[in-house]
Amino acid sequence: MKKLAIAITLALTTAAASVAVVAAVKDEPIKPIRPAQELNLAQVELGKKLYFDPRLSKSGFISCNSCHNLSMGGTDNIPTSIGHGWQQGPINAPTVLNSSLNLAQFWDGRAADLKEQAGGPIANPGEMASNHTLAIEVLQSIPDYVREFELVFGSDKITIDEVTQAIAEFEKTLVTPNSPFDLWLMGDEDALTDKEKAGYKLFKDSGCVACHNGAAVGGNSYQKMGSVEPYQTDNPAEGRVAVTKKDADRFMFKVPTLRNVELTYPYFHDGAAQTLGEAVEIMGRIQLGKKFTEEENAQIVSFLKSLTGDQPSFQMPILPPSNENTPKPEPFDS
Amino acid sequence: MKKLAIAITLALTTAAASVAVVAAVKDEPIKPIRPAQELNLAQVELGKKLYFDPRLSKSGFISCNSCHNLSMGGTDNIPTSIGHGWQQGPINAPTVLNSSLNLAQFWDGRAADLKEQAGGPIANPGEMASNHTLAIEVLQSIPDYVREFELVFGSDKITIDEVTQAIAEFEKTLVTPNSPFDLWLMGDEDALTDKEKAGYKLFKDSGCVACHNGAAVGGNSYQKMGSVEPYQTDNPAEGRVAVTKKDADRFMFKVPTLRNVELTYPYFHDGAAQTLGEAVEIMGRIQLGKKFTEEENAQIVSFLKSLTGDQPSFQMPILPPSNENTPKPEPFDS
Repeated sequence: MKKLAIAITLALTTAAASVAVVAAVKDEPIKPIRPAQELNLAQVELGKKLYFDPRLSKSGFISCNSCHNLSMGGTDNIPTSIGHGWQQGPINAPTVLNSSLNLAQFWDGRAADLKEQAGGPIANPGEMASNHTLAIEVLQSIPDYVREFELVFGSDKITIDEVTQAIAEFEKTLVTPNSPFDLWLMGDEDALTDKEKAGYKLFKDSGCVACHNGAAVGGNSYQKMGSVEPYQTDNPAEGRVAVTKKDADRFMFKVPTLRNVELTYPYFHDGAAQTLGEAVEIMGRIQLGKKFTEEENAQIVSFLKSLTGDQPSFQMPILPPSNENTPKPEPFDS
Repeated sequence: MKKLAIAITLALTTAAASVAVVAAVKDEPIKPIRPAQELNLAQVELGKKLYFDPRLSKSGFISCNSCHNLSMGGTDNIPTSIGHGWQQGPINAPTVLNSSLNLAQFWDGRAADLKEQAGGPIANPGEMASNHTLAIEVLQSIPDYVREFELVFGSDKITIDEVTQAIAEFEKTLVTPNSPFDLWLMGDEDALTDKEKAGYKLFKDSGCVACHNGAAVGGNSYQKMGSVEPYQTDNPAEGRVAVTKKDADRFMFKVPTLRNVELTYPYFHDGAAQTLGEAVEIMGRIQLGKKFTEEENAQIVSFLKSLTGDQPSFQMPILPPSNENTPKPEPFDS
């Protein structure tokens, strides 16, 4: 009986503590970004090298970081990416920042998670233009990589599964906490200006938050691009229908995260909107049937810029060298 | 009189201390790499950003680091580089590591120093394909850059002179001390294996050291590629004659540094030698009229690998974002 009493007391104390912590976070449809947790640091370090290693491409020139540049908001800041042989990509490169929070990967959600995503561009003839067999052959030829894979995964036979697992683990570190907006969410009233607060109120009152919510301010649902008014674009992408084959999913795209949106220009799946002001104007019109005044637009843009958090901070990785057994890059053999 | 005596005593003490320090370094034709000194750290930090900023290129995709990749020995590890529109470059990208030790920059020495060099690729239509006016317009449109240039150089009007000065100052940090060979030079007998020591002896006895000497193990003279036997190549580069217009300078190239040569493959100005073994074989034959045995070749290669020093170690820079006033990249408008 005494034991039970203690247990109940403990439970109540714990609950009270939790309430105290939770109480500090405002009850809003947008939640703070939390620092990455429960990471396998050995996989992270290996994954970082792989993320920066252009030898995963046929040319030896394109790495994950080429199009998801961690110096530039995890994007390439051009409408659609440059692939092998300077091919023009079909769609805007989404940011890798906070991508672990997405319900699925790619604009059409065709990859379930970061691990599945990571294998795609390596073998895409329009992107890195290699293939998984060749990529493994390259890595397996490099003793320092073989040693590191063995340390991390326990086998000296490298697999694509391990490669994508390590890259995904590194990508999980790429969360961006501590934006001014998050500081405000967590109780620091001075973290936002009045203009930013007014922008957030408009963002909620106008309905933007219906799709852009949660910790990533998006990334957790598919929505139709042009729900009120059709979106005009030359881009042939049709969104989620490519995955589900259901006609109802035509023009359904994963809602992009608005975290660090100041850094991830240009906007939309076709990269057609160059500025946040333009993006807000178009979204208001085609998704909500709203015309924001110039002042309202500026307020929302101001709020959006408060979503820029701590950017990735790490030592540039040094890659182990190739040797006479490493398959040679073929930059000009396409 | 007493003052003078003290001054003399001090001078003698200092001299003795210097002798003690110098005595520890072996008297060899190769000198240890010294850590970078007398740097302007504010310029270094700004220059690091510029070095990684692809907005100095027309496409918004190519930065200094694209071809002088600091994760890969300061090179791109392909025979000749990929430029704007996937153009094939005319010559192998030399490493930026320890390039501050070169007597001049580029294979033909057409730039006097790193500052002069840095302006070249930005405006080269086959490389970054921008121009200095456009590059400045881009930087000047970005308030965070304007602020940083003002802090560093004292003016809010950015000039190409400041841009190349900052990049050069960053590049001066890219020295690679503490290679096993340097530790040996400085008295640690165990820093080299017997094979590496034998390789170094051969390197000296065979005459390689006639050109590859000093702290950079090269970089301090122009020499004819093919002094004993003509070098066979499809590469049209003719070397220093392009600068001096003197016929005697045909096929005279700046001797490349052998520092970190394990990382800077493929070799020669045409990037035709894929491995160190191949490079040693060819150099022996066409420069020295020597045929190394397999064992000798392996010993020299082993010595060359002992020249890999501390690689650059720094935080990946975060770049300030563009805005509506920033000229847009034109990746597909070539």
